[in-house]
Amino acid sequence: MNTTRAKDFTQWYQEVVDIADLAENSTVRGCMVIKPWGMGTWERVQRLLDDRIKATGHDNCYFPLFVPVSLFLKEAAHVEGFAKEMALVTHTRLKIVDGQVKLEGQLEEPLVVRPTSETIIAESFAQWIHSYRDLPVLVNQWANVVRWEMRPRLFLRTTEFLWQEGHTAHADAAEAEAEAAKMLEVYRVLMEDHLALPVITGEKTPQERFPGAVATYSLEAFLQDGKALQAGTSHYLGTDFAKAAKIQFQDKDGQLHFVHTTSWGVSTRLIGAVIMTHGDDDGLRLPPAIAPSQIVIVPILREDGDKAPVTAFCEQLARKLRAQAFQGEPLRVKVDVRDRKAQDKRWEWVKKGAPLVVEVGPRDLAKGEVCWISRLEIGKKNFEAADAFVAGAGERLQSMQAALLAQAKAFRDSNIRTDIKDFAAFREYFSKKAAHLAGGAPGWVRAHWCGDEDSLKVLDEMAVTIRNIPPDQKGPGVCVLTGKPAEKEVYFARAY
Amino acid sequence: MNTTRAKDFTQWYQEVVDIADLAENSTVRGCMVIKPWGMGTWERVQRLLDDRIKATGHDNCYFPLFVPVSLFLKEAAHVEGFAKEMALVTHTRLKIVDGQVKLEGQLEEPLVVRPTSETIIAESFAQWIHSYRDLPVLVNQWANVVRWEMRPRLFLRTTEFLWQEGHTAHADAAEAEAEAAKMLEVYRVLMEDHLALPVITGEKTPQERFPGAVATYSLEAFLQDGKALQAGTSHYLGTDFAKAAKIQFQDKDGQLHFVHTTSWGVSTRLIGAVIMTHGDDDGLRLPPAIAPSQIVIVPILREDGDKAPVTAFCEQLARKLRAQAFQGEPLRVKVDVRDRKAQDKRWEWVKKGAPLVVEVGPRDLAKGEVCWISRLEIGKKNFEAADAFVAGAGERLQSMQAALLAQAKAFRDSNIRTDIKDFAAFREYFSKKAAHLAGGAPGWVRAHWCGDEDSLKVLDEMAVTIRNIPPDQKGPGVCVLTGKPAEKEVYFARAY
Repeated sequence: MNTTRAKDFTQWYQEVVDIADLAENSTVRGCMVIKPWGMGTWERVQRLLDDRIKATGHDNCYFPLFVPVSLFLKEAAHVEGFAKEMALVTHTRLKIVDGQVKLEGQLEEPLVVRPTSETIIAESFAQWIHSYRDLPVLVNQWANVVRWEMRPRLFLRTTEFLWQEGHTAHADAAEAEAEAAKMLEVYRVLMEDHLALPVITGEKTPQERFPGAVATYSLEAFLQDGKALQAGTSHYLGTDFAKAAKIQFQDKDGQLHFVHTTSWGVSTRLIGAVIMTHGDDDGLRLPPAIAPSQIVIVPILREDGDKAPVTAFCEQLARKLRAQAFQGEPLRVKVDVRDRKAQDKRWEWVKKGAPLVVEVGPRDLAKGEVCWISRLEIGKKNFEAADAFVAGAGERLQSMQAALLAQAKAFRDSNIRTDIKDFAAFREYFSKKAAHLAGGAPGWVRAHWCGDEDSLKVLDEMAVTIRNIPPDQKGPGVCVLTGKPAEKEVYFARAY
Repeated sequence: MNTTRAKDFTQWYQEVVDIADLAENSTVRGCMVIKPWGMGTWERVQRLLDDRIKATGHDNCYFPLFVPVSLFLKEAAHVEGFAKEMALVTHTRLKIVDGQVKLEGQLEEPLVVRPTSETIIAESFAQWIHSYRDLPVLVNQWANVVRWEMRPRLFLRTTEFLWQEGHTAHADAAEAEAEAAKMLEVYRVLMEDHLALPVITGEKTPQERFPGAVATYSLEAFLQDGKALQAGTSHYLGTDFAKAAKIQFQDKDGQLHFVHTTSWGVSTRLIGAVIMTHGDDDGLRLPPAIAPSQIVIVPILREDGDKAPVTAFCEQLARKLRAQAFQGEPLRVKVDVRDRKAQDKRWEWVKKGAPLVVEVGPRDLAKGEVCWISRLEIGKKNFEAADAFVAGAGERLQSMQAALLAQAKAFRDSNIRTDIKDFAAFREYFSKKAAHLAGGAPGWVRAHWCGDEDSLKVLDEMAVTIRNIPPDQKGPGVCVLTGKPAEKEVYFARAY
């Protein structure tokens, strides 16, 4: 790493993505190539979340990539929200005439490459739902989506990204609201228990709602530069999408009603949240639950020696470790047999954030010992009998998982100010002169806000945003921006 | 089912897709909605294949959905092959002016929605590969692809479909050819062991090669209407894509060489192959290895009785069954607690092709018995002590898996003619007058072919195709089409 977090957090982030070999920019502007270590991490997130989505009664489906423009037009706020970032398909053939590309087969109606699938899925719901017996409908899809991005950044903001989007339909508002809350909680548990991200959940302000939603709830991650990152959202959509697509059901009393829908999603942006929360000046640190390999074994092979015994010992060690468990799953162990120097390999896995790296050379073999280092303490070489290391590996990973969460939580909690009560102090806190975090960045402020739309202008000028309105409220107070009476507290922060 | 296979195979297929609730057409022409039971089946195929792809040393990546037109133009045969079925993105914003949709933000260069990813992945390979130490590169991606389809049919031929595409780069031709052969074999094992599809592997004729390939190998499934379905392909691409993208490496001797690449893929089309191979006049029959639920338990609940004991017994039965294994995995068991008549539920699961359906009512409960039916023998109700049923369930599924493969194999083998030696007999066999299979369709013919391109015209007129050239050859003979000397035998068939 050439850059420390304190020196230039943005540059540091780019270097970690690069040095950990997670992803890279492609020749298509704004689109990324996700490389094996990044994809392996995302696949872990997928697996863990997919299990929870299914355990809460949802089925996976797959809906079309293309949405006819006319479907978007049915829901005014929705089209408004996405119109400026749509990839539009207009033709279906090309021809080369005198070396020039000519487009042919123009479509009667342009197709939007889905930026999200509420409108296309509503069409299916309208086909599927007729009676109260058909409800609830609880589906999810894992898919790619496209939102044209002018200032792309790997994982955080890319034109194409991977995500899951859940879509549900219910007989009444209460059940739909409970669903939106339930999935917010599923996300919170995923993020805290597996990604080691302590997130703050709450409702978005009306100004920050998903286009077309009645209520949007978010999970906000606290990054090491003091900024917030919206790590996931869950929306109660009311009956607007149902009305646009005529999703009606006959109730027990024979009356026709519109369904109440929800949608909720998390994306590859989560990888960005993990990097910016857990990375350090040596590279990435991956929580064991989502590390593609939790333990990497590096054989130390002497050019002039017999390599077979060391390699065989490493393979056997890997097999024994795979018989151990972490969070109910067999350990994921890799033996790195590539023809490179052991020291280079060790350092590579440190940068990639593998939780434990084990080295085994001929001398260790003779003693039945291994030398291991933890990604949380890379300066310390630990020598341990191989069997003892195997027996303790699951627990060691568990304590690393817990340590990463605790560290992130402590960092967050010590950087949220709850004592700022007036605008002068607020402005001072978010000014450049005040040095709070490394790099001189501010953290977050939790304070009362009156809800006046006018008060947002001053925030805009300061590049500060309201992240969400947390559910744990202590009663009315005075707005930190306007001095007016205010019902609720909100979180203020700079954000990605 | 309203239609039998014998009466109208095409209509029967459509009805099975519908009645088993696998998928449906969407409002976007040619694109399908994959419903939970269809998606669950595809997810099983994915999981099984993904494990094998990883076990053979490949890593998953993700590459952009969009390919700039200019990348396609670099490889002439490739662009030729796909130019007539491309979805082209030309704009990035829309505006509503007086109720009319106006497209804005025109792209300087149109983007193709990937029909396949050789060209975009080659760009990454060119970045990644510099030295012989960087080889081989072995990657795979699970993705959606788009090929504009004029005559779509669910699963078999849709504008958008889901697939995996493997892409590899090697130092020389021999290693790349071995890779293409290895993945063909991985597919064969997947299809035979898990999908119970007996497939015929072989090389495609030059006329049927993938656009840009040096050699294409295919796996051909034999369907119940006697037609062939190309169920997967593996390509040795030579150095053409490497030359187009300048993928070069420095060898040990310091010389620069182009890499040799391969690609290989299977898609949601496999679901179509399963339906058309295993379905019967009662609906779908799913091989246990890919059934989302292998055993469905239907509680028989009397309106006037106490439902709790039966439901509890069913849940307990499910837990015991989940502790049993099939092909090394825990059994997948569903308790269908929906508020519907038991008989309707049983019949629904028969149509969906669940391998075993178990019914438990208050009387069975008293005796500690269950009543089960196998999808291979739906007329027979089997009464068995619950514990005995649990203990034998894994083995029963295993024998059903084997039976489906054996049945399909016997059907195929009895419908491939190897005794047709001249064109008169060949024409007679493929004529409509000769009734061979149900519905009067012919099967396949294995016979010598001289390789003359002219001889393909007569096949075209008869709507017969050459499927592939199998590796097991018995020596030269006489071409069944032209009477000329011919080196090799090929498979002739009608095809989807």
